[in-house]
Amino acid sequence: MNEKLKKQIDFIIEIDKIKSIIRKTKLFDGSKYENDAEHSWHICMMAIILQEYSNEKIDLLKVLKMLLIHDLVEIDAGDYLVYTDKNIEKNEKEKKAADRIFSILPDEQKSELTLLWKEFEEKETAEAKFAFALDRLEPVMQNYYNEGATWKQHNIKYEKIVNINCKIEDGSTELWQYAKNIIEEIKNSGVI
Amino acid sequence: MNEKLKKQIDFIIEIDKIKSIIRKTKLFDGSKYENDAEHSWHICMMAIILQEYSNEKIDLLKVLKMLLIHDLVEIDAGDYLVYTDKNIEKNEKEKKAADRIFSILPDEQKSELTLLWKEFEEKETAEAKFAFALDRLEPVMQNYYNEGATWKQHNIKYEKIVNINCKIEDGSTELWQYAKNIIEEIKNSGVI
Repeated sequence: MNEKLKKQIDFIIEIDKIKSIIRKTKLFDGSKYENDAEHSWHICMMAIILQEYSNEKIDLLKVLKMLLIHDLVEIDAGDYLVYTDKNIEKNEKEKKAADRIFSILPDEQKSELTLLWKEFEEKETAEAKFAFALDRLEPVMQNYYNEGATWKQHNIKYEKIVNINCKIEDGSTELWQYAKNIIEEIKNSGVI
Repeated sequence: MNEKLKKQIDFIIEIDKIKSIIRKTKLFDGSKYENDAEHSWHICMMAIILQEYSNEKIDLLKVLKMLLIHDLVEIDAGDYLVYTDKNIEKNEKEKKAADRIFSILPDEQKSELTLLWKEFEEKETAEAKFAFALDRLEPVMQNYYNEGATWKQHNIKYEKIVNINCKIEDGSTELWQYAKNIIEEIKNSGVI
């Protein structure tokens, strides 16, 4: 096997670990906690199906690549609850993780994936904003279908839920409208 | 919520079930059986990383879409061992599943995804051949790292393993060379 393919295979094996990074939200039927691979797959499907609702014109391929890789850093840094403050230490851990994991790849691919990951984190481009909106929308939907399970479990109040998730609007006004409605519905049911 | 978005949301919730469709192969570290969502995510990552090895020029976006949706039919039809004959009954089940699941979507998206799924199944275009190669390659790699676990469990012989997986070559000569080498290595270790 040539040196380049060897690096690529090593990366493919390393990233398998994302399947064991457990998230804070459960599947829609509540049967188990979701892992990062399942989550990444699902928001890619959401990008395909919901692309028309992006506020800005997007390059769908770039969005999919971002969504596929956005949680790889959690192999080292772990998943965190979006309602807690993401502190400097967590950010540092993720940067180190990106450097370690993407460095397994040949240089050119390391650069491409590192740039894509940074673009997602910075939330400035149309693609990053839409990708970020989907990354937030999926757990809101899961909480809606699980009667606010994560919110109740961690005692997250309505105002905080709106405050954190309203950033969905930067990527999609229509999807934020939908998210706001279902959060409101949960609130009106007295669960949160 | 408008009628179109409602259909799209219904589809997004329905496909969550793929996370509970368990495959015949285990993760690279052998810790658990993989499910279809994890598998689909992983072969998308492989498409991004290994695209240069496709025999023909490919549209990567199309490959990713195919890989993301290719196993949705298993929500109804279940996973099957590639070394057993995929019989007419199984094919019929998958067709019915595609019709049921994609029909949840608005008409235009139903048509697009149905065509993509059929294209993948027919393995005639450059994208379908490369996508199919990755769909086969991942379990070969998993078996290599798990000392031929699935092959031993189901008593699959070396000749059958080569015979089924040599179709990887239609999508990528180089990746088939790699797959053949690791199958050979497992054979030489006396496991199969």
